[in-house]
Amino acid sequence: MTTSELQHLSHQELAALRSQSLDRYHRFQAQDLDLDMTRGKPGPDQLDLANPLLEVVSAEDFNAADGTDCRNYGGLDGLPEAKTLFADFMGVRTEEILIGGNASLNLMYDSFMRAMVFGVGDGQPPWSQQGALKFLCPAPGYDRHFAICEQLDIEMITVAMGPEGPDMDQVETLAASDEAIKGIWCVPKYSNPGGIVYSDRVIQRLAAMQVAAADFRIFWDNAYAYHHLTDTVPEQTCILAACKAAGNPDRVYMYGSTSKISFAGAGVAVMAASKANIEWTRKQIFFQTIGPDKLNQLRHVRFFGNIAGIQAHMKRHQALLAPKFAAVQAILRRELGGTGVATWSDPKGGYFVSIDTPAGCARKVVRMAAEAGVKLTGAGATFPYGKDPRDCNIRIAPSLPPVEEIEQAMELVAVCIKIAAIDLLLDR
Amino acid sequence: MTTSELQHLSHQELAALRSQSLDRYHRFQAQDLDLDMTRGKPGPDQLDLANPLLEVVSAEDFNAADGTDCRNYGGLDGLPEAKTLFADFMGVRTEEILIGGNASLNLMYDSFMRAMVFGVGDGQPPWSQQGALKFLCPAPGYDRHFAICEQLDIEMITVAMGPEGPDMDQVETLAASDEAIKGIWCVPKYSNPGGIVYSDRVIQRLAAMQVAAADFRIFWDNAYAYHHLTDTVPEQTCILAACKAAGNPDRVYMYGSTSKISFAGAGVAVMAASKANIEWTRKQIFFQTIGPDKLNQLRHVRFFGNIAGIQAHMKRHQALLAPKFAAVQAILRRELGGTGVATWSDPKGGYFVSIDTPAGCARKVVRMAAEAGVKLTGAGATFPYGKDPRDCNIRIAPSLPPVEEIEQAMELVAVCIKIAAIDLLLDR
Repeated sequence: MTTSELQHLSHQELAALRSQSLDRYHRFQAQDLDLDMTRGKPGPDQLDLANPLLEVVSAEDFNAADGTDCRNYGGLDGLPEAKTLFADFMGVRTEEILIGGNASLNLMYDSFMRAMVFGVGDGQPPWSQQGALKFLCPAPGYDRHFAICEQLDIEMITVAMGPEGPDMDQVETLAASDEAIKGIWCVPKYSNPGGIVYSDRVIQRLAAMQVAAADFRIFWDNAYAYHHLTDTVPEQTCILAACKAAGNPDRVYMYGSTSKISFAGAGVAVMAASKANIEWTRKQIFFQTIGPDKLNQLRHVRFFGNIAGIQAHMKRHQALLAPKFAAVQAILRRELGGTGVATWSDPKGGYFVSIDTPAGCARKVVRMAAEAGVKLTGAGATFPYGKDPRDCNIRIAPSLPPVEEIEQAMELVAVCIKIAAIDLLLDR
Repeated sequence: MTTSELQHLSHQELAALRSQSLDRYHRFQAQDLDLDMTRGKPGPDQLDLANPLLEVVSAEDFNAADGTDCRNYGGLDGLPEAKTLFADFMGVRTEEILIGGNASLNLMYDSFMRAMVFGVGDGQPPWSQQGALKFLCPAPGYDRHFAICEQLDIEMITVAMGPEGPDMDQVETLAASDEAIKGIWCVPKYSNPGGIVYSDRVIQRLAAMQVAAADFRIFWDNAYAYHHLTDTVPEQTCILAACKAAGNPDRVYMYGSTSKISFAGAGVAVMAASKANIEWTRKQIFFQTIGPDKLNQLRHVRFFGNIAGIQAHMKRHQALLAPKFAAVQAILRRELGGTGVATWSDPKGGYFVSIDTPAGCARKVVRMAAEAGVKLTGAGATFPYGKDPRDCNIRIAPSLPPVEEIEQAMELVAVCIKIAAIDLLLDR
């Protein structure tokens, strides 16, 4: 029955499948599950991989290569060796990088706050003094990005995501026509939640497009740059290089971190951009801090050594994560394959699987799953203002639970999707 | 000769003393000194005291008391045990505290940025939408505080510092009369640079005074709360308790850190305030970060244990710092005692000695010292806009150099002061 498209079933067949699925749902309820598939948190086994990092800086050995005592004040934009490592990491030069604290979200947020209060560079007016502001938000996307715009009262304009990235026709038309549009959020590799890898064509168009606002900024959150699930690593043009080539070197702010490489709560975050952007930003940050935690930078430099060390480390993450993502695919295929009531991503990297149910079903599925003990990311969370216009997208975060829990949870999710879809068909 | 007030000397005597002093100055110049007395950095010996902190969180043992994996995401406002420790540290309740990253300057700066963009609480208009803003700046004070106001284009109004704290008559008159005055900077214990301990009377008046601005905030940077140089620890009323008692619970933002307790670049910073202020701030910070570095919080909790552990640790700092401060006093007394050309603080804690030269001499002294190889904090740095109206204040930071270097540097400083003062007297 799972290979039949549900829409071709008779009323009686649907009712029978509904009844059978509801039985399965009740059996799940009876199990008193307590599973959490909400957030893209690394599993403890992934974190364990970086445990030696906790011990590479000791009471005897806390100086940087140039002799800097990493315990003391100083180093506004990072240790030289941290800049070298993370410039490679971001694919830029050392003068195009700033080392931050433990969270790239913090760096992105602070970039917004600086833009609001000071503008994005010398002679640029503060965003907060330019009346109503807008931002382009490819969706489904990352809820924390959208939350920043919402907090700052920046109107979000949803842009459709396609298989190569945002709908560039839409982006180009909007960006060129409205000075109030100050930028666009992008997760360019293994996007959250769709797992989309932006194509070079999309990147070139973003870099070269006409923008009405002189202070337009691409917020390029490359959170999953090294987070591959297969051995085929996608090549991707560097957006900063593309922006330079297009004569728009200052258009992009890039962000990255080791949050999902070393420790999620105690990694190193970085910002990369043109030399002019970085110099201006460094001047502003001078007022904010004496400098980020150099001991933690040193731990990272010593543990990873170089970019090859990070890549080798991420192969070990891949070995732990790939079976979890495979389990999600296997259950979804088994339960929903051929039913015609759901499509889902099969990402080659990143932290999420994106499921699209029939319109009007996502909230119901998330609620039903919760009532059977499986927490999912709130329906709508992947869209601006938490409102999925079609109520169909569900984000699955399989990194944290063990495989057997993922299998249970996904089976339940699939059963819930089936019930919701059948209810819709029976309602027609 | 050193016990004679210079102003009572004859022209000839002054000329002889000048010539003798200039000889000494030239001998300093010949030594090719390279000494730095500019910043309040802990010495390596002080940092060494906290080295075990680097090893109390290991690859086997990284969970908080409640089982939280400190390597992973979460904990927006701090680990429970960190809140307990730092609530004691700040003299407040755990619901009155937020744990931050490694720098209290960062927390203060972010408080300003939030105030600019969102206001200081629900229903309060953003500072940036209220026209010209002003801030009360007791001076001499901390250059980094003044720099924040300058960056944000907030007009600084200098308030005189007395032996008990800011001139409260002046503060009360100004705060009550001008709605544009949004707050006051305070370093209430062992102030930077004067070493002043605010009296309870001053604290009560700050807490109870009339303020014209409904969104007035006291920025209470208690950076040296535990940084005693003698065994007599001053008792000081808690400003938050005083504000509550006066019916103004939300008036104060308190800040502290372990920057000069554990590691200057890798400590733990905290903000404390009324429950309402903290809850509101936590809601805003949610948009900025998933949470600060919990591993570093855990290191601090394990190393210090409790507030008694911090106090005991600071006795060890005292043992290292007190001789340095004593050396400054001894040289200044020997060289300038009774000359009538300088007064200086004899602080019972903190990181600085404040010297007042005759008006118009500070810049010259700092320049002469630099030309003989001793870097001092720039003259004027302790005043808003870097401009000391009388050009008389010099900040000495004796924590970093060893005693013998401090003695050399202070002797040179004293010689420079003498020369500058004599030049003034000869010019009359």
